[in-house]
Amino acid sequence: MEDRRNIWIEEYYTSEMCTHICLRVKDYVYRAQSEFQTVDVVDTHDWGRVMFLDSVVMVCDKYEFIYHEMISHPLLFSHPSPKRILIIGGGDGGAAREALKHPGVTVDMVEIDGMVVDVARKYFPGCACSFDNPRLNLVIGDGVEFVKGKKDEYDIIVVDSTDPIGPAVGLFEEDFYRCINAALKPEGFFAFQSESPYYYSDFQKQVIGKLRKIFPLVKPYTATIPMYPGSFWTFTVGSRKFDPFEIRRRMPLADFSLKYYNYEIHEAAFALPEFAKKIFCQEGA
Amino acid sequence: MEDRRNIWIEEYYTSEMCTHICLRVKDYVYRAQSEFQTVDVVDTHDWGRVMFLDSVVMVCDKYEFIYHEMISHPLLFSHPSPKRILIIGGGDGGAAREALKHPGVTVDMVEIDGMVVDVARKYFPGCACSFDNPRLNLVIGDGVEFVKGKKDEYDIIVVDSTDPIGPAVGLFEEDFYRCINAALKPEGFFAFQSESPYYYSDFQKQVIGKLRKIFPLVKPYTATIPMYPGSFWTFTVGSRKFDPFEIRRRMPLADFSLKYYNYEIHEAAFALPEFAKKIFCQEGA
Repeated sequence: MEDRRNIWIEEYYTSEMCTHICLRVKDYVYRAQSEFQTVDVVDTHDWGRVMFLDSVVMVCDKYEFIYHEMISHPLLFSHPSPKRILIIGGGDGGAAREALKHPGVTVDMVEIDGMVVDVARKYFPGCACSFDNPRLNLVIGDGVEFVKGKKDEYDIIVVDSTDPIGPAVGLFEEDFYRCINAALKPEGFFAFQSESPYYYSDFQKQVIGKLRKIFPLVKPYTATIPMYPGSFWTFTVGSRKFDPFEIRRRMPLADFSLKYYNYEIHEAAFALPEFAKKIFCQEGA
Repeated sequence: MEDRRNIWIEEYYTSEMCTHICLRVKDYVYRAQSEFQTVDVVDTHDWGRVMFLDSVVMVCDKYEFIYHEMISHPLLFSHPSPKRILIIGGGDGGAAREALKHPGVTVDMVEIDGMVVDVARKYFPGCACSFDNPRLNLVIGDGVEFVKGKKDEYDIIVVDSTDPIGPAVGLFEEDFYRCINAALKPEGFFAFQSESPYYYSDFQKQVIGKLRKIFPLVKPYTATIPMYPGSFWTFTVGSRKFDPFEIRRRMPLADFSLKYYNYEIHEAAFALPEFAKKIFCQEGA
């Protein structure tokens, strides 16, 4: 019999709530309130299973590969010899899954909200497939506290967080970036998801300003991620030595099971449209 | 007094109507039925003024620059000496506006629906600003008929059409592509908007197959256009001689008033994510 239920879930794109995406719901799978946020899991017709944190799309089956490949591989193929990786956030497991495709890499992952990890394990097995990998050390805790006092430990640090409101707000502060810098080895890379210039350009200017005080090289790169508002998404790299545009570990990609990343995409991701240059490249960076 | 009207306009992204974008409406500006389609003009809070053709977003103030710059400049900066351009469709005027930024270029523009041109002139002056340019020859008529029998006339032909349903369907046929090929000079480029791989991959495979029978070189390129479903948008080039990836007219861009296109973006646009390569690059193209 035809399913005639007409249930929809919406995500508003701005605080003024004048644009939103509507997804038709097949089934409402899970809803709970953690210590930090509300967690919803919904099966939709077009995007497959979707996780919302505080009513904002975090991941969905249809598009999560883009975000997770692009927050991981540009750094991992640019660093000349990545071994120790720290992921802050990333509770769904997708970023860890991609990082662990690189042989010899070990990952510390620090997620503040244990419920996100539990929900991913149960409802997003495709993302969470690396949680039992012996090269992953999963810590439930505050990433800001975790990096404090660390010295010269990581080759790459990735912040895979929600928007800069709610539990993630401390992950966009200058003090935190100073601790990140100290925790990195001298050739280290730091990267984080830095929102869409169509919705967060003021935030981006502020954050870039903070990073430039700390890292010798600051570079944004982009990907088109249709599950997020505006789709034109940025990641920003703070580098202690190397230019992340350069691919230093060029090896055959066939074993990496990639759906988005390749070496042409790596280089293309660093090209910025004119309007975005004005946001990210002030002061000649 | 605060405007408390709560009026929304929606665009459905698939025929199954399980995903749609909702835009809050400030004012309903215009609605009419032309010989070919319904035309709506709506002022929205986030996207500015929007034109819908048959309930599908055609242009909006916020994002039209991306589409119009990217359907025009990659060809115009790649062709070694573009002089005569034909635009089929493009009734809002945006593609002509961009093409005419190139000194010495003349444009024939053939739009089937005169109402779209009239509406653009009245309600989208930013797009329609070139309609009175003496280097533009505007023809209201059927582009398919217009190119029939033309030989060796154009350096570049651009098809700026709606989706391959309704009045635009003839613009995606093999016979039409043969006429385009004949109408081009031996060094000519043909390009058209070729939809998003997230929604139209079967169509894209078919169209690529048709083009490959006719053009020695067929290449897609991409742009992120948040006003269209999936945002990850493609244009496809059929070339008689040159590779459109190569920039052959590298000149200072300061005079072109560009918000999206630049030479890095030109080259980056030809990089395809892995999943899109599988759609576009079958048979070793």
